[in-house]
Amino acid sequence: MVNFKEELKKYQQQINQELEKYIRKEKCPEEILNESMEYSLMAGGKRLRPILVLVTYKLFEDNIEKCMPYAVAIEMIHNFSLIHDDLPGIDNDDFRHGKPTNHKMFNEATAILAGDGLLNSAYMVISQDLSKSNKEEIIPKMQVLQEYSIAVDRMLAGEYLDTEAEGKNISENELKYIHENKTGAMLKASVRAGAILANSKKEDLQSLTNYAEKIGLAFQIKDDILSEEGDEKILGKPVGNDKEAKKCTYVSQYGLTGAKEILDKITKEAIKEIEKYGQKAEFLKELALYIQNREK
Amino acid sequence: MVNFKEELKKYQQQINQELEKYIRKEKCPEEILNESMEYSLMAGGKRLRPILVLVTYKLFEDNIEKCMPYAVAIEMIHNFSLIHDDLPGIDNDDFRHGKPTNHKMFNEATAILAGDGLLNSAYMVISQDLSKSNKEEIIPKMQVLQEYSIAVDRMLAGEYLDTEAEGKNISENELKYIHENKTGAMLKASVRAGAILANSKKEDLQSLTNYAEKIGLAFQIKDDILSEEGDEKILGKPVGNDKEAKKCTYVSQYGLTGAKEILDKITKEAIKEIEKYGQKAEFLKELALYIQNREK
Repeated sequence: MVNFKEELKKYQQQINQELEKYIRKEKCPEEILNESMEYSLMAGGKRLRPILVLVTYKLFEDNIEKCMPYAVAIEMIHNFSLIHDDLPGIDNDDFRHGKPTNHKMFNEATAILAGDGLLNSAYMVISQDLSKSNKEEIIPKMQVLQEYSIAVDRMLAGEYLDTEAEGKNISENELKYIHENKTGAMLKASVRAGAILANSKKEDLQSLTNYAEKIGLAFQIKDDILSEEGDEKILGKPVGNDKEAKKCTYVSQYGLTGAKEILDKITKEAIKEIEKYGQKAEFLKELALYIQNREK
Repeated sequence: MVNFKEELKKYQQQINQELEKYIRKEKCPEEILNESMEYSLMAGGKRLRPILVLVTYKLFEDNIEKCMPYAVAIEMIHNFSLIHDDLPGIDNDDFRHGKPTNHKMFNEATAILAGDGLLNSAYMVISQDLSKSNKEEIIPKMQVLQEYSIAVDRMLAGEYLDTEAEGKNISENELKYIHENKTGAMLKASVRAGAILANSKKEDLQSLTNYAEKIGLAFQIKDDILSEEGDEKILGKPVGNDKEAKKCTYVSQYGLTGAKEILDKITKEAIKEIEKYGQKAEFLKELALYIQNREK
């Protein structure tokens, strides 16, 4: 790969174009609700999850059309979770991606319903795709549907525990459990979705699952590091809030240096899992490094 | 049918027993989140939607096992919508079924996530059932999945508009649109689910859809009437709030007498749609009358 960042941008654009197709532009009484869903969905996230679906799928198959609805669905789910996490009743955050959060831009009722709407839209997109699929495609697609629904369930458990842990001293195991569920489950589901839709072999699914678990953990550790020492302007959200809220993070647990050491180790392990695919997995390798080194 | 109320109670118990099977009792870090989902799910609703799935299915087929996951799923969806509607950011209600609402019993963060969890659980239940189904069953089941996801989308649009309409003068058409979406869509989906899962003929699906649309409207009109003149003790929630919040309802639009006249007319029309099934549809007929005459 000559230039990872360009490749990443290309994928992001591809995902954005695909998401655009699902935006409802029609005049209707509830159009502001639709606008609020679009506002968050198109607010400029990294598109990490849908890209993982795509790139993992491409390790084995070329016709990416087949996995696109599942890439779109997982990004909808991700944005649902952000809208609800930001609500006054949960994290009470005012900014996300450098823009006002959904409830700040619209209002709380709209944000609750927009989050609900995006979660539900993910399942609507999948059910629509299923109804158009031929018999051979249905089995892996139904498996992805099930994996997504279980991952969302885990994400909600993680989010609940994260909220409960605020201001409390929690153990290393508890912190790990929160991360594995809150962030890890959906990242793992993204990678597994790509592999499952491409009918990958059992061993491949296992290696990629291992890779996903490791970058999921790395992602969370990096998040904790950025929340502590990131640049507010680049990050698009306030820094130091975790400390203020006495949140238990990898930084509060192991210190900045300790957290960075763990991040480095886990990133190397992730890359090792996909070495066997050689050049084909170059993007996944670079992605692991990008998660480690990102500034937002 | 000798005694409708006894039959209804039997169905409610059957649904409650089925729901119990999906309650997670295991010890886990997030068990309070699970408890809060159970709290709302088992708080004693009328179980109208799952009963509609069941009874419509039984018009054509006997092995009710097949439709049970879809009865459970729709009741989960219904309870998700109640938890979120009750939130401080939306209706800010303190009581439901005579008990504290979810956010009053637990807290706001938990209630948001419990609602999310119940919506997602519905899809988890369906995806689990799909993965165990044989080839012939999959097509109608996937259709129900799609109908549910579209109905939830409509319900959210209706809820959004209902929130927006508060304190405003809205037209008869706008009021009708809100009701058709907010309450009507899911009731219609319940009836259609039963018929689709039983592989009913096109004409049957149409008659039952008409029936469902009419009882859906009747249900909402009756809700508006009860909110105005119901008995707080029987209802389990305060009466007169709609007037106070200047909510647009059938009562505010047509007066109590006018609303009751429309309710009577629409109930008769609903019953006419299912007359052709004779004795077999006796319960559905009684159900329409029950919706018209219920005290809670």
